[in-house]
Amino acid sequence: MRLLLIHARSFSFEVRDKAVENPEPLTEELKRGSADNTLVVFTTVEENDNDSPSFLERVADDVLDVAGKVKASSVFLYPYAHLSPNLAPPPKAITILNALYETLKGKASIPVYRAPFGWYKAFNISCLGHPLSELSRTITPQESAPQRKPYT
Amino acid sequence: MRLLLIHARSFSFEVRDKAVENPEPLTEELKRGSADNTLVVFTTVEENDNDSPSFLERVADDVLDVAGKVKASSVFLYPYAHLSPNLAPPPKAITILNALYETLKGKASIPVYRAPFGWYKAFNISCLGHPLSELSRTITPQESAPQRKPYT
Ligand SMILES: [Mg+2]
Ligand SMILES: [Mg+2]
Repeated sequence: MRLLLIHARSFSFEVRDKAVENPEPLTEELKRGSADNTLVVFTTVEENDNDSPSFLERVADDVLDVAGKVKASSVFLYPYAHLSPNLAPPPKAITILNALYETLKGKASIPVYRAPFGWYKAFNISCLGHPLSELSRTITPQESAPQRKPYT
Repeated sequence: MRLLLIHARSFSFEVRDKAVENPEPLTEELKRGSADNTLVVFTTVEENDNDSPSFLERVADDVLDVAGKVKASSVFLYPYAHLSPNLAPPPKAITILNALYETLKGKASIPVYRAPFGWYKAFNISCLGHPLSELSRTITPQESAPQRKPYT
């Protein structure tokens, strides 16, 4: 799983068109969303990822650790197919993203929002630009700890 | 080289603090920038990249092909360390990014802007959300054609 975490002064999105053959079904709630002072978690589910609780808890703990350090008021889980060339098939990605969302909600003391998988979306983001405002992660089911990059 | 191309209604950035020991020297021109209807090219220079003209021309041709398809009014080259775990060392990244910038300027019929390497930056982006508004690429010096991902 690849994550790009951006601490945003503001973030908003709005669903446009279908991007895959069987996208996640839309609800009114999922068609648009916005938040201020939020940690946006651009998330690519990779082919070797799974929905084991220990893996997803490791991901959630890392995300919430960053959210706490930057004092974000919420977390925004945003499916993003552009961080890895090794994508999980869409049905698997949907399952894992939703399990990660539930894991985050179960652990977080701040609101957790999400955007739907499989739709083109317009979005606006205002990245704050402080040293922790952009971080990337590769976390795999096999590792014992999150892998951090050399200079982020 | 990893590219994330975002067709933005608007994009702006402003330099904050040093992010690496020897960042690119700043000029007034490089401290901030903005553009409307621009193709933002978030760019990660990887360790196996080089500044050979044939490689950089291949990258530039691909970027300008997308810019033409989306009818962008400019291209905005933005150094981005978060698209790959295999980063080139900073001096090499600076050399290659500047060579890519010159290659783009030499080929483009629209303005080409850039942001400096090695600085934390605040930025605002408004992604349009149409099907070609977010594309990713991995292009290497060894390949004969850009590699495209399964569903972008
Ligand atoms: Mg909503
Ligand atoms: Mg400028």
